[in-house]
Amino acid sequence: MEKLEQLYEGKAKRIYRTTEEDVVWVSYKDSATAFNGEKKAEIEGKGRLNNEISTILFELLKEKGIESHFVKRVSETEQLVKKVTIIPLEVVVRNIAAGSLSKRTGLPEGQILPKTILEYYFKNDDLGDPLINEDHIDILNIATKEQLEIISEQAFQINEVLTSYFAQKNVKLVDFKLEFGVDRDGQLLLADEISPDTCRLWDAETNEKLDKDVFRRELGSLTDAYETILKRLGGLSCTK
Amino acid sequence: MEKLEQLYEGKAKRIYRTTEEDVVWVSYKDSATAFNGEKKAEIEGKGRLNNEISTILFELLKEKGIESHFVKRVSETEQLVKKVTIIPLEVVVRNIAAGSLSKRTGLPEGQILPKTILEYYFKNDDLGDPLINEDHIDILNIATKEQLEIISEQAFQINEVLTSYFAQKNVKLVDFKLEFGVDRDGQLLLADEISPDTCRLWDAETNEKLDKDVFRRELGSLTDAYETILKRLGGLSCTK
Repeated sequence: MEKLEQLYEGKAKRIYRTTEEDVVWVSYKDSATAFNGEKKAEIEGKGRLNNEISTILFELLKEKGIESHFVKRVSETEQLVKKVTIIPLEVVVRNIAAGSLSKRTGLPEGQILPKTILEYYFKNDDLGDPLINEDHIDILNIATKEQLEIISEQAFQINEVLTSYFAQKNVKLVDFKLEFGVDRDGQLLLADEISPDTCRLWDAETNEKLDKDVFRRELGSLTDAYETILKRLGGLSCTK
Repeated sequence: MEKLEQLYEGKAKRIYRTTEEDVVWVSYKDSATAFNGEKKAEIEGKGRLNNEISTILFELLKEKGIESHFVKRVSETEQLVKKVTIIPLEVVVRNIAAGSLSKRTGLPEGQILPKTILEYYFKNDDLGDPLINEDHIDILNIATKEQLEIISEQAFQINEVLTSYFAQKNVKLVDFKLEFGVDRDGQLLLADEISPDTCRLWDAETNEKLDKDVFRRELGSLTDAYETILKRLGGLSCTK
């Protein structure tokens, strides 16, 4: 398979066409952005780390019976994924209060939630990715009721797999964001990436932040934090 | 029944204890506030207008089988209502895009929604009354699942009654906010007020705003707009 012309450039990844119609080539960038693109930086090594961590987590999910768009890693910073049309929805799963949930509800950061909760955000930079409810999703034709049912069910399944996996690695999965897409056959598929860019990950003992909050809040070296996660997950770079 | 000491003062009303334990005395103030209290004014006549309009609408709902906390109007600016503990939830019903829905979703103001939608806001001044979803309501213990079911069902019923009533008066019911409370017996009851402070009301032909947006956006005389609504509803002041 060959990498052809660029189809799309997002904040963290570039997508290229390939010689296979149903597969696209994803290149993870070293760019870090936060606060809807207001804060930006280039951080050497970030693309490689997210590509590797995402690969490990998509493969883990596949083992546990949860399909995704992921096909295979093809280089340090690149992976092949099935071509999907992304549903403009950020699906956020939360186990512990942090970030915008604390701001919205007044629940103190770090408080374990009495149950895992789901939030939907409209993926729309111009509107600042606002929180929306199922009625908004319906009238905006973002997803059908059937798609939303599958999405919420899968989100909880993914949470169970990831939470127990990270727990074994001495990491708390505080919250994370998922995106889903629809392939050419209309099948709904987990898409985007799962990495410290899209998860809040805290050291289980110290609550040290090992995710993008290190960048958002300037808490130290982002690559050190992401390397810690990669090492705890067994680390592709160590084994290849 | 006698009016005793003040129990509470809100932005638009004062609540007094009465000689009857289950009844409180509500006095509608002339204060207008918007943007979470950032914009304020005293507008003579506003208290009387909202008291009268709210009386008409609560009596209409009662006729249609929808109970509320409303007992009776006792003066130009006062009414008696059943004592309830307010559930800290603003229940917003929307038929046409306007205000924060347009801002949140990009739907242009005035666009008729493909279906009536419901939104829940956490009634909390410190947090700026944020939009929340049913999971937030659950983990914050704002309302039980059973209460929320009754609330959403009643909200749609109220919308049907009010929409068709206002249509007869040549007024579009764009959206409105409801609050609910729980009485001493644990019964859920529609509470607060229903007035141009809590409804968006547009002239059916010209789309002229006849509600608090006149104050929010400085579109003219608020009391002229509210008087127009009161007159179209038959007007208590004309009949008493």
